[in-house]
Formats: sequence, C-alpha cells, structure tokens
Amino acid sequence: MNLNEIISGIKPVNNEARNVARARNDVLIKPIGSLGEIEELSVKLAGITGDAFSSYQKKAIIIMCSDNGVYEEGVSLAPQMITLMQSTMFQKKITGVGVLSQLSNSDMVVVDIGINSSAQSEYFLNRKIRKGTGNVAKEPAMTKEEAFEAINIGFDEVEKLYEKGYNVIGTGEMGIANTTTASLIIMALTGCSVEDATGKGAGLTEELFEMKKQVIRNAYALHKPDVEDTIDVLSKLGGFDIAGLVGVFLGAAYYRLPVVIDGVISASAALVAYKLCETSRQYMIPSHSSEEPGYGVAMKALDMEPYFNLNMRLGEGTGCPFTFFLIDAAESIIKKMATFDEVQMDSSTLVDIREDKASDKAFST
Amino acid sequence: MNLNEIISGIKPVNNEARNVARARNDVLIKPIGSLGEIEELSVKLAGITGDAFSSYQKKAIIIMCSDNGVYEEGVSLAPQMITLMQSTMFQKKITGVGVLSQLSNSDMVVVDIGINSSAQSEYFLNRKIRKGTGNVAKEPAMTKEEAFEAINIGFDEVEKLYEKGYNVIGTGEMGIANTTTASLIIMALTGCSVEDATGKGAGLTEELFEMKKQVIRNAYALHKPDVEDTIDVLSKLGGFDIAGLVGVFLGAAYYRLPVVIDGVISASAALVAYKLCETSRQYMIPSHSSEEPGYGVAMKALDMEPYFNLNMRLGEGTGCPFTFFLIDAAESIIKKMATFDEVQMDSSTLVDIREDKASDKAFST
Repeated sequence: MNLNEIISGIKPVNNEARNVARARNDVLIKPIGSLGEIEELSVKLAGITGDAFSSYQKKAIIIMCSDNGVYEEGVSLAPQMITLMQSTMFQKKITGVGVLSQLSNSDMVVVDIGINSSAQSEYFLNRKIRKGTGNVAKEPAMTKEEAFEAINIGFDEVEKLYEKGYNVIGTGEMGIANTTTASLIIMALTGCSVEDATGKGAGLTEELFEMKKQVIRNAYALHKPDVEDTIDVLSKLGGFDIAGLVGVFLGAAYYRLPVVIDGVISASAALVAYKLCETSRQYMIPSHSSEEPGYGVAMKALDMEPYFNLNMRLGEGTGCPFTFFLIDAAESIIKKMATFDEVQMDSSTLVDIREDKASDKAFST
Repeated sequence: MNLNEIISGIKPVNNEARNVARARNDVLIKPIGSLGEIEELSVKLAGITGDAFSSYQKKAIIIMCSDNGVYEEGVSLAPQMITLMQSTMFQKKITGVGVLSQLSNSDMVVVDIGINSSAQSEYFLNRKIRKGTGNVAKEPAMTKEEAFEAINIGFDEVEKLYEKGYNVIGTGEMGIANTTTASLIIMALTGCSVEDATGKGAGLTEELFEMKKQVIRNAYALHKPDVEDTIDVLSKLGGFDIAGLVGVFLGAAYYRLPVVIDGVISASAALVAYKLCETSRQYMIPSHSSEEPGYGVAMKALDMEPYFNLNMRLGEGTGCPFTFFLIDAAESIIKKMATFDEVQMDSSTLVDIREDKASDKAFST
C-alpha cells in the first residue's frame, strides 16, 4: 500500500465507544475517577478499537533491527556487530525485552530491516533494505524510495499481526548508533537544539559525548532538511529502524490497534508518524520516561506523558511490557469490577454478612 | 509478641546479597544500569531476603478494614456501612483491588480489625478490636493497649503468611473517614500543616473539604500528641486499620519480606513503623503516587519515591499489583537474562547466524 493510501485509511477514534467506557467506569464500585489513568486508558482503548469491552490478550512487540552508517564517526562505544548479535538473541528470551515480553505474555516479531551483515538467522525475519544506512555525517541516510519501503515493511508486519488476531502492538528496536539518528529526527521535527535532543546513549564518556553532539550538529548543517517535508527529514537523517517503526505506528492506527511507544528511538518514530498523519497519535500509548533527553522533547511535541519513570534507557521495546500490564489492568477493571447497581441488586451481598464464624473464604488462595 | 521483641528482631538488610545482585546486573547483556529502577529493585529485594535469586511468586495483600469514630463529624460523603459492604466484596474479586490482585496473581487477606458492625462474614477474618475507634474530634481514637493489640494483629497476619510460604506482602485498607486519621498521623510525625496533609478523600465538595480541615485542626489541638512518642500519636489520632498496617510493616521487616506501600493510609502506617523502628524502612517498596497530598509528605519523610503516577486515589491496596509486576520483572531479569560471558562462550550464538532462510522461529508464539 502506498503512503497516501495508508494515511487516508487512518480514521479518528470512536467517541461513542469512549463514552460507553467512561460511563461504565463511573458506575463501578469506587469513587468516580479514583482509578485515574487506568480509567483514562480504558476510555482510550475503547476509542481505538470501537468497543469498550474489547480483549487485549494477544500482544506482540515488533522489533526493527538495523545498522546506521554514522556508526563510523565513533558516536557509539559498542561494536556494530552487537546489532546482529542482539537481533539473534531476542527470540531466545535472554535479552531485556525477551525476558520482559515473556513475563507480560506477549510475543515478539524481530525484523532485520537493514542489519550490516549478510547473515540470516532463524531468529529474525529478513526484510533487509540494504546493509545499513548511509553515514549521515557525509550523505543522506537513505533515499526517499527506501524510506517509503521501510514504512511499508512496518505497515506490513502490523497487517500480518492484525490478520493473526493480535490486538496490542509494542514497538522496539536494535541498532547501534540509533540514538544519534533519533536525535537528528527530533531536532528537525521540533526545532530543539542538539543539547536538548542528545544523550549519552548506551554510556559515552564526556569527551565522546561532546564529539557525538558535534557529529549531529555537522550532519544537521550538511543536510538542511526541509522540516515541512517529513519524508525529507526521515530519509536524510533517519534509520531503517526508525522508518520501519513509523510504518508500525501508521499500520496500528490503520488497523485500529493500540500501539505502545517505548524509548527515544520509538518516540522519534511516533513523532514522524504524527507529522505524516496527526490522527495516528490517537492510537499511541506511552510507557516509561526514557533517560535519553530527546525522549521528553518528542513526547512534548506529541503532547503525551509517560506513565512510569523507571530510569530505563535500554530500548529494545523494554518499556512496552510495563504498559501492557496497565492495558491488562484497564481491561480487567472495566470487565470485572461490579457496578453500584449490581451490588445493590445482588441480594447475596447481604446474605454474605451473617453471624457465622469466619470461614476459609476470608483467605483467598 | 510484644512491640519491643518485634523491633529488636528487625535486622538490617543483607549487603552481601545486595552486592551479588548488583554484580549480576552489571554483567547482563545490556549497558550497565540501563534497566534503571528494575535493577535497583532487584538489588533491594536481594538485601531484603538475603538471596539475590529469591522467588517472589507467592504474594498477598493484607487489607485492614475498620471504622473511624470521626466519621460522625461529616468528614466523608460515603455512608459508614460502605466499610462493611466493601469488606465483604474484596474476596469476590469485584472491587478495584480484588480485580487487580487477581490480575497480578496475588492473594488477599481481608481483616476486620474494627468494623462498626456485629456482622461476620465468610469473606473476612474476624480480628475486631472494637466497633470502630473513638471520635478523634472528642476523644482519643484508641487506648495505647488497643494500639499495641492492633500492631500485633498485623504482625500476626504477616507471620501466618510467612509460615505459608508467602514471599511478598502488599498493604491495603478499607475504612470510611480514614484519610482524616492518616492526615492527623502525618501531621504529627512530620510537623507539616493541615493543608499539606489533607485532601478531598473520596471526593468532597470545597465546603466539606474546608470543614474536614477544621475538624483535623481542632482534633490536633485537642490531643496535643507527644510527637516524640509514636504510640501516643498513633493511639490518639490513628485508626485500627492504620495501626494494623503498622504491624504489617514491622512484621514484614521481622520476617525479611518485601512489603509494598499503597496510598496515603498505607504510607501513614509505613511512617509510623519507620518512627518505631528505622530499619523497617529497608523492607518497604513504594508503588504509585497517590493523589492525596499527605502521601507525598509521608513519602518524603520516608525518603522514598513512588515508581508510578497513575493519578489513583482509591486505596484498598490497588497500587500494590503494579509494583508486584515490577518485582516480577526484577526477578525475571536477574534470573533469565544472559550474561556477556554466557553469550560469548555459547557457540550456538554464532551457529544461529547462518545463511539459512529465516524460519518460523523469527516469530514467537
């Protein structure tokens, strides 16, 4: 599907379903609004799916894996082959997101969208565009055609999940040097400074951090992206991982699936998706506040606030499982809590209060 | 057990186990510290249990249910019989905490420690001290002996859970008007003003809110608690629910079990426990930031910060299941993530990277 078709297929959320969810929350046996963000989330989910009582039990995190040409400028301490190595390990459930996705009963879809290697693996899907992007310090990261292709791959993977009955999507990524490309995107789309957008990634020294900021400053000056042309920004400054995630955000909105934002890379992709199609924002759900400063800038531009501050900065999609738990909570509350009417009408409420001795039901196991 | 015996049985956490957990986190396949609070939590849990690789799969929330004499001053809009009604509904899994405890695979122990009713129920334990406390606007809430008795009940319930093999304790409460008593306790133990400590509870009008603050101001002036004598503060101003939870916090510390703080009532009890025995704080784990202002004051005095801000103010223990998920995450990460050594030494890592076509392992189900 081409980008225009995708965008024109993205419709606003369903306000009627939101109202049903709101009304239901208001009659549950608790003070109105006292479950705060859990109630808000159930209202948001209702709008997304169009049904206040949807199920959210089939979840998957799409992990876009790709290398970045700017790696050769020394912006990351980690060797580039970590991208490939980690990409083979997600499905073994021994990485951060592998362990946490298992805990939250969610699946993973690991996509090689541009790893700098010819290696293939049974542990990831081969959707490689090419072996890593161009070095943004010297040349555009990718062509516009490649940007469209990457978006399509993301859309496509969501479509496959949709067809398999998945109802919640998470976003993750793996790509050495991708905090550099995420910073560039966030600068271009928000107008913020390199200082506001840039952090130490996986852990740079002060000296290397200064150097990284200089690389970003120079790359930005070199490309002079047309900030009104989001695809120009994405193709010149981005990565295949980010572009793929843009497709995931748009695909989720197209198929009316809630999609969870992880850290700074994911947030930069969410921002691109929002700039391409404002309505797509209605389908996005935040997770944790990344330690990377660009995260906050992107989220402010999206007018969203994270639920948690866990001082995490791992990426991979590790924030998603925490929000998955909130989604489960929102689903459980709206489906399983009693209403005031139900309790008053249920005579067993009073039958249960009697002069018997306390029995073992006082202790649930 | 008397209070002095309990307190002298509370020992500091195990620093050796903390170091083992810290060292393990540092060799897992991720940038050091990049899982932030999840890593810190696994270190904290290791110190609590004395074993970096403990299991935390058996969890229970102890819900102390009691009425407060100050109800008759009109400080709450809810009828007092809600305390009894809700107390019968927790184990039916139709209240907020009932639904969320089920979601987080935790049990509940519902304790009638002072409900204003003769009714018994198969859905709660009868540990009633008497039918509600005295009205703090006119008289002390309870005698010092009753405060000791309530603490002992809390301790006792933790002991029973410990003996049944439980390894995580949550705190919850039900008691109409208990934000009033929690405010009084927090004022006495931190020296803060009535404005800093007091919120609208389940949802007061502005006029009733002003009246509630006046009731609190007058009650505080009437009792002039000796702020150096924590039991004087607790007995004059508290509730049986709060005093029972003090015993839960002390009992958890005594038996080296992590114990999760919920909202403002729970935080006021945690503060009392801390004042009685500073070391008990080492066993406490925060959850969400309650909307009640006294919560923040109590947490500051405890030098703790909540993980989440979900704008919740329901109480019952509803914050605990969210922290239970973090505890599960901390346990999973330290037990299931691979170390750099394991990955380098594991030749299958490289075997997996080969020129085969991507197989279905790329998609986990």
